[in-house]
Amino acid sequence: MKNDMSTAQIFIEGSWQSSAGSKTFQAVDPRTGEAVGDAFPVSTWDDLEKALAAAAACDRTTRDWTGDRFAALLDAYAEELEARREEIVNLASQETALPVAPRLNDAEFPRTVNQLKTAAGEARDASWANPIVDADNNIRSMYRSLGPVFVIGPNNFPLAFNGISGGDFAAAVAAGNPVIAKAHPAHPGTSRLLAECVEKALSKTGFPPGFVQMIYDVAPEDGLRMIRDPRLAAVGFTGSQKAGVAIKEAADALGKPVYVEMSSINPVFVLPAYLEDSGENLVGEFSTSCLMGSGQFCTNPGLVVLPPGEATPAWIEAVRGRFSEAATNPLLAAGVKTSLLDSVQRLVNAGAELLTGGQAADSSGFIVQNTLLQVDAATFLNDPETFQREAFGNASLLVTTTDISQMAAIAGTLEGQLTGVVYTTEEPGDEAVYRELEPVLRRKVGRLLNNKMPTGVAVSPAMNHGGPFPATGHPGFTAVGLPASIRRFAMLECYDNVPEHRLPAALRTS
Amino acid sequence: MKNDMSTAQIFIEGSWQSSAGSKTFQAVDPRTGEAVGDAFPVSTWDDLEKALAAAAACDRTTRDWTGDRFAALLDAYAEELEARREEIVNLASQETALPVAPRLNDAEFPRTVNQLKTAAGEARDASWANPIVDADNNIRSMYRSLGPVFVIGPNNFPLAFNGISGGDFAAAVAAGNPVIAKAHPAHPGTSRLLAECVEKALSKTGFPPGFVQMIYDVAPEDGLRMIRDPRLAAVGFTGSQKAGVAIKEAADALGKPVYVEMSSINPVFVLPAYLEDSGENLVGEFSTSCLMGSGQFCTNPGLVVLPPGEATPAWIEAVRGRFSEAATNPLLAAGVKTSLLDSVQRLVNAGAELLTGGQAADSSGFIVQNTLLQVDAATFLNDPETFQREAFGNASLLVTTTDISQMAAIAGTLEGQLTGVVYTTEEPGDEAVYRELEPVLRRKVGRLLNNKMPTGVAVSPAMNHGGPFPATGHPGFTAVGLPASIRRFAMLECYDNVPEHRLPAALRTS
Repeated sequence: MKNDMSTAQIFIEGSWQSSAGSKTFQAVDPRTGEAVGDAFPVSTWDDLEKALAAAAACDRTTRDWTGDRFAALLDAYAEELEARREEIVNLASQETALPVAPRLNDAEFPRTVNQLKTAAGEARDASWANPIVDADNNIRSMYRSLGPVFVIGPNNFPLAFNGISGGDFAAAVAAGNPVIAKAHPAHPGTSRLLAECVEKALSKTGFPPGFVQMIYDVAPEDGLRMIRDPRLAAVGFTGSQKAGVAIKEAADALGKPVYVEMSSINPVFVLPAYLEDSGENLVGEFSTSCLMGSGQFCTNPGLVVLPPGEATPAWIEAVRGRFSEAATNPLLAAGVKTSLLDSVQRLVNAGAELLTGGQAADSSGFIVQNTLLQVDAATFLNDPETFQREAFGNASLLVTTTDISQMAAIAGTLEGQLTGVVYTTEEPGDEAVYRELEPVLRRKVGRLLNNKMPTGVAVSPAMNHGGPFPATGHPGFTAVGLPASIRRFAMLECYDNVPEHRLPAALRTS
Repeated sequence: MKNDMSTAQIFIEGSWQSSAGSKTFQAVDPRTGEAVGDAFPVSTWDDLEKALAAAAACDRTTRDWTGDRFAALLDAYAEELEARREEIVNLASQETALPVAPRLNDAEFPRTVNQLKTAAGEARDASWANPIVDADNNIRSMYRSLGPVFVIGPNNFPLAFNGISGGDFAAAVAAGNPVIAKAHPAHPGTSRLLAECVEKALSKTGFPPGFVQMIYDVAPEDGLRMIRDPRLAAVGFTGSQKAGVAIKEAADALGKPVYVEMSSINPVFVLPAYLEDSGENLVGEFSTSCLMGSGQFCTNPGLVVLPPGEATPAWIEAVRGRFSEAATNPLLAAGVKTSLLDSVQRLVNAGAELLTGGQAADSSGFIVQNTLLQVDAATFLNDPETFQREAFGNASLLVTTTDISQMAAIAGTLEGQLTGVVYTTEEPGDEAVYRELEPVLRRKVGRLLNNKMPTGVAVSPAMNHGGPFPATGHPGFTAVGLPASIRRFAMLECYDNVPEHRLPAALRTS
């Protein structure tokens, strides 16, 4: 498609401008596979250069502002979003095929607004900055902003993790950093609506041009060039492991803070007495968690390890029934469908048995049958790398064991994960298994759950939405959970023997 | 030298064992250039494999211990050190040529013991772990140990930054991690004494074998292999940029926490009115700071930017006098001497004028004349990369300006630094320059000082001994300053819906 007058504009330098790029793309309706809406530009370096210059210029003004200014922006943005709620959730639903209700309107939209408001509260409160005054030595330190941040959002949350409205965005702004957002090309229209709300909020709160900017898409080499640019201070990314690793490598080589949230299969271990006692409830709980949103959650339970024993075959059969009966919904994009079908084929080729599903459910849209696979522990343990590769979407792999000690052995082969779950009673048999399993599992996961599916990620100060590599790039940081998530986008500033009038306000004592 | 019965043993698996490596080395007396003391082994992979296995096994026991156990070890170690103080400082002085008094006995030894005791206090107090209990959601989180840590110490602090007794060691242990220390080959005998003290402390406090282990040296490829080994959880390194970058790259590729403290030239800016008013005092203050310990401090002031004006030439001449008259002391090792002479030559080749020094001061020992160089701002700005490369040792480069705006321009070309200093009055002229300079300098340095040399690094909770790359690998962490330094060696553990009896003690509410 050629770049004509109908091509959407990018939001840079405080205004809507035509992209210098001549390539364009359209959103695709996942229900039909057909292109919908306006043409959106793929930005080239010229756009990024402008955005970087504007962000750096803006930063020179805003870096000395106190938290209440950034809080005002976040609150104003939340208000603008509320005013266009219906339009936003409707367009997001069109572009992603996620249902307006309950998903977008009743869950993701309120969560997004709540995150922005909570981040505003933390920016105002400023305890995240941890000011320390050592009066005896006249040394003071606190965390402060570090400069323009590039936030790259994923396909699976058009609002709550969007580069221009999600958790990384809110954290980077709360810390006082200008943001250059890359919207995900799967929902460009939604992202444009969000940017229009930001624009109003920026204007109402008196921010200079360039504090928040947005592009729709960019070639990987230009994106990496921006990451390496000295004007860019940090990167937040949520998406695929392949892109995440490339981004992390580029930033790491320059010692630039980079936070990547990548793949996770979120293993679930079901202990024997639990399956006996509560297996029936678990059929529904697991099926709902796995198939919700067509399984397109970072914390989707993609691997379930089952105990030896008579209860297991019946439980598997019950889950198989649920999966085959449950409604299917479109996946987010053509690439998700292709990748899911490939992943299922790979698992089958490696020796997994297909219990149900495994095929495209329509020809033009992006629907894949709900898919359940099964493999025995010995086969899994023979090639754990293949069997734990993520199959993003409405699919899960069940692992049957013949000896309960295989549970810890399987846990021992896992890469880092966002979450890990153990379903267990408090009976002595389960407790003994737990005591073997937990030490192996604990350090492999950011969040350890008992008797609860991992798909809900509460916005709680105690939340850890993070975990060891390759779930993320560093096990000490979380992408959800304020105020901890803010400190990712900050540097530690120390002032030694600096007089009061030259200190940031939070470090002054008189 | 062949591996015979007199070769020192390494401290692994809880005991003193012969290294599997056949290569050995000796310490060298920097005063004479002659080998002194026992032969020490260069470990090969077999040693590292044993150490990793022992650390991992130990970790399975100690990871659930609470902070008071690690505190007891740190306190017991401090006590053992005190008991052998004289022996330790004397041997350290022989191996490093640093004076027993005041440096080793009156400054570095007490600092080392103080760090261990302070870390013990923080391990006991455990506020560093930041436990958060969200009772409404039944979600809890805290920072906890992450597993065996490899601590690699530098040549310039045989005690306070030694892999087996320094700040990284204390932080890693306080977080509850087993440590595999690599002593620096410049002071192996000192490191052995320290390990003997650790051995006693481990025994007295009932630690399993392998909680602290030490090797003396290792080939880079074996060291990198250990960093990549899945049993190793994190790395702490202080030393050269070349080694640090290689270590960081190996760890980053696996998303393994790595903290490298590398090079820094610690720029000092002297504003016009300050030079007029207090230039005379600054001559002594700067010369002392630069030449102390033969300039072998991470925070040594290696670059001084001087204002235009009549006071400057006289100030330079006074400093030149001090440098040429001041006593010289041996550098730590042959490599430091070679590297310093090379660096001086490189600066001269690039256009700097040698004001004094620049030559070896003896033939067999490691003494280099106190060296002062000068370059004008225009020449500096023409090739800032060359002029800011670190010349580690008793040398400094003065930069003269013809226009005060060159100060901010020079600051703008600098890489990340541990420290940056501005000497300034509160007169309007200086304040105006400060307001131009500070925003450029602030984000380039971990610690910003006014009217104070950077060479003292107080052990204060407000201290930041860190800074943007390449001073370190991440601007949000500090190597000195408790409790912040502890959290580097920890992961964030979240517990979601986990019953009380399965939680770490710090997260229980009943």
